Amino acid sequence: MISRLLAAFVFCMSATVALVDELRGTGDLGVIVERAAGSLQIIETTTQTSLGRVEGLGDLSHASVVFSRDGRHAFVFGRDGGLSRVDLLTATVANRVIQAGNAIGGAISDDGRLVAVSNYEPGGVRVFDAANLEPVADIPATYGQADARSKVVGLVDAPGRRFIFTLYDAGEIWTADFDADNTASIERFTDIGELPYDALITGDGRHYIAGLFGEDGLAHIDFWADTPRVERILDGYGRGEEPLPVYKMPHLEGWALAQGRLILPAVGRHELLVVDASTFEEVGRIPVHGQPIFAVAQPDGRQVWVNFAHPLNDTIQVIDTQSLAIVHSFTPGKAALHMEFTPRGEHVWISVRDEDRVDVYDTQTFDLITSLPVDKPSGIFFTARANRIGL
Amino acid sequence: MISRLLAAFVFCMSATVALVDELRGTGDLGVIVERAAGSLQIIETTTQTSLGRVEGLGDLSHASVVFSRDGRHAFVFGRDGGLSRVDLLTATVANRVIQAGNAIGGAISDDGRLVAVSNYEPGGVRVFDAANLEPVADIPATYGQADARSKVVGLVDAPGRRFIFTLYDAGEIWTADFDADNTASIERFTDIGELPYDALITGDGRHYIAGLFGEDGLAHIDFWADTPRVERILDGYGRGEEPLPVYKMPHLEGWALAQGRLILPAVGRHELLVVDASTFEEVGRIPVHGQPIFAVAQPDGRQVWVNFAHPLNDTIQVIDTQSLAIVHSFTPGKAALHMEFTPRGEHVWISVRDEDRVDVYDTQTFDLITSLPVDKPSGIFFTARANRIGL
Repeated sequence: MISRLLAAFVFCMSATVALVDELRGTGDLGVIVERAAGSLQIIETTTQTSLGRVEGLGDLSHASVVFSRDGRHAFVFGRDGGLSRVDLLTATVANRVIQAGNAIGGAISDDGRLVAVSNYEPGGVRVFDAANLEPVADIPATYGQADARSKVVGLVDAPGRRFIFTLYDAGEIWTADFDADNTASIERFTDIGELPYDALITGDGRHYIAGLFGEDGLAHIDFWADTPRVERILDGYGRGEEPLPVYKMPHLEGWALAQGRLILPAVGRHELLVVDASTFEEVGRIPVHGQPIFAVAQPDGRQVWVNFAHPLNDTIQVIDTQSLAIVHSFTPGKAALHMEFTPRGEHVWISVRDEDRVDVYDTQTFDLITSLPVDKPSGIFFTARANRIGL
Repeated sequence: MISRLLAAFVFCMSATVALVDELRGTGDLGVIVERAAGSLQIIETTTQTSLGRVEGLGDLSHASVVFSRDGRHAFVFGRDGGLSRVDLLTATVANRVIQAGNAIGGAISDDGRLVAVSNYEPGGVRVFDAANLEPVADIPATYGQADARSKVVGLVDAPGRRFIFTLYDAGEIWTADFDADNTASIERFTDIGELPYDALITGDGRHYIAGLFGEDGLAHIDFWADTPRVERILDGYGRGEEPLPVYKMPHLEGWALAQGRLILPAVGRHELLVVDASTFEEVGRIPVHGQPIFAVAQPDGRQVWVNFAHPLNDTIQVIDTQSLAIVHSFTPGKAALHMEFTPRGEHVWISVRDEDRVDVYDTQTFDLITSLPVDKPSGIFFTARANRIGL
């Protein structure tokens, strides 16, 4: 009996010591979505290793992630309406709810207290307490005479406990401002254009831009104006040219702002649009390898990295933001679908989905640093996003 | 014996459970320098509480701090040449060296592996392994015929394992690029101007700007140019006006970049300079309450907050970056000397040194949220800096 107690005590002491040794910061962590398995790999970017896997996250075929302000928890938004709060330090699911039938993305408020999810079915936005996923608010995306409900896309956070989002079917943009009692004030911008399919917010929280699937052009709101209103920008940018069949909609979250210019994928074209970020006028185009899906600026804004739709999705091109020239092209492998930069920009991590691999590249030399085995990787998200507006 | 073992085991289990409960993220942490006591308070910005105090950090009368890339450790650079690596999770000093006689600031490389310190005495830069503070390199700031050694100021990190710094006595700017074997290649820019006393690097790592104490004007290098070179900007901005006695040099780390304009304190004047961030030409001036020390943009760039030199240092003014108008003035208290914004910008923390207090304000409503008792607070540094170039 004494020897068993002694053994138990010694084991407990070892566990405690190990636990203290296990203490780690969260600033260099990240998650990679394993889309087929419905799991998340937790990684660290300091020595590029995997720390564990979290399973049971449902349908992650189109998943996105935001982080708690302390970087400890990841909020995972699954296609099946699942919302999971994952503890990165213990690699466990701390809370999980199925909050809708079909969902597309989410956001976290600037103070870190509210998590919002944008739903296709039922169309609308649901808001939860970030600490425990208790429901806080339900905003049905109703429109028109018959109170139809629209799919919601382009959900972002903005300063002041605000969420901004777009109603795909309705052609509207709404803002929801939450007061200290979690009551939301909604403002609606109507008739913004046909079938706005995605949106972005600039890193200062000032400009919200929605891409239109139903027409050439984008809808823009300057939220610092005395009276914010919607204006059309880049109207008819494709006019007169034969549009290509669109295999995959470009993601506006994969836009790039560098050197006072926005670089955006053009829908249905082998081109990027270059837009002056003050006037929102087109100032150029960059012909690229295929239909661009993501155009992402590295943190210092010196280069923009672009990937492409099937069947040209084995290739990445790198563009210099001063000259707008393509300075590098390479083929990581089949289905190079997502890119994420370390926060100071020295490395980029690239999902090579059909080769079950994530590659890490040096952003200056373009050398391959290492690869990690990951099951059908899609989105890669680093905790540094916790400290950025709109991410 | 059995009951003692049982008690020990139960105690150990409780400790383990408590330790797991104690797990926390590091993304919402920060430190406040207690300049008289030579200690650091560790705080969290989610609920604005103090988590502990770390003592034995020597002379912190002019201390600065950078963070490890995972946000777990703070590197504290003390005036007496002390360099301390503080574990924020255990509130302990993990490593400490006295690396010079008199020092002013430091930086961490983009990959998080090297920590550099800028020394007054002996003049130069010393570089250490961030993991354990083992010495890696010594760069004496020698100049002129007699191999004199200059004080070093304005030390920053830049992309590519690079450090940039300024030699005050010599009037030179140097870059040091470290290869994988920690060998530094040094480039020297000479005759940059008289007595460059401080410098800044823009958030993209592109522009390095040094303020000149010996003349009106600043020295600027664009590191993205094919052949970077020094050029004088804002030459003679004070010409023709009677300069005021300078009680305290403005800090260029407290500069602001917003809306394509740099807002800089003017030396010896009750003014801010407004500078076009592409052309570096002066585009305006803003008359303010006193001689500005820090002009800091909040994270969304919508407002710039300014504090002032003695005897007007009880006041803060807030400037709207679109209109350049002063939109708010308030007096937190005596010696409101340092400001730090939460990463998404909802709050600002202000050191009120002579009232032994740090105040937290809402950046939109300007309401006081709370105050924390802090002993003679000076610099406030949040771990979000870990993920920003140049901070």
